[in-house]
Amino acid sequence: MPETFAPDVNRVDCPSRIILEHVTSRWGVLVLAALLDRSYRFSELRRHVGGVSEKMLAQTLQALERDGFVLRDAKPVIPPRVDYSLTPLGQEVAAKVNSLAHWVESKVPDVMQARDQYDKAR
Amino acid sequence: MPETFAPDVNRVDCPSRIILEHVTSRWGVLVLAALLDRSYRFSELRRHVGGVSEKMLAQTLQALERDGFVLRDAKPVIPPRVDYSLTPLGQEVAAKVNSLAHWVESKVPDVMQARDQYDKAR
Repeated sequence: MPETFAPDVNRVDCPSRIILEHVTSRWGVLVLAALLDRSYRFSELRRHVGGVSEKMLAQTLQALERDGFVLRDAKPVIPPRVDYSLTPLGQEVAAKVNSLAHWVESKVPDVMQARDQYDKAR
Repeated sequence: MPETFAPDVNRVDCPSRIILEHVTSRWGVLVLAALLDRSYRFSELRRHVGGVSEKMLAQTLQALERDGFVLRDAKPVIPPRVDYSLTPLGQEVAAKVNSLAHWVESKVPDVMQARDQYDKAR
């Protein structure tokens, strides 16, 4: 994309779209929200985020690390210990994602009611 | 889920997780952000959201309508005209999603730099 174009998530070829997909992916959202509270070891994070497979969690963390949102800290100890935490950039995006997740949690009854109405009208 | 459990996006069986997936889906994010500005006709929205297929846009809009975020207004005219807009609940979530999308657009250079560093270190 030429530098004269401002980033635009509505453009197929804009790099912002891939970044947005990383932070809004099924597991990306939950990982970012979890790390907003504190750092996690891989296995802890896997227990915290219900339903994520080892492979998907590793892929999610790697994408977020490469984008500069997550820090991977491999401690030189036996057995190996790897901690994941947020960078300052990651904290900014995690705050937004976390606010969205909590909003959704708080609106479950409204959505359930809307679905009932929708389904009854059909 | 028993009513004594508070909604928790980290639980596999919590309805909040599906709602979160609707609003953070690849096209859900872009549709909500677009509708924050104004109402759109289907074909307009399809042009605005680069790369979306007719089928995916229809599925996305239907999920968001059923969840109570989007209003579908079919005008009784010839040729048929259908307008999509946000409900008050949809405006709340769209504001959050839009803020996230704009944040990502504004941080593209930071993410590109982080990726360069990550790739060079490997």
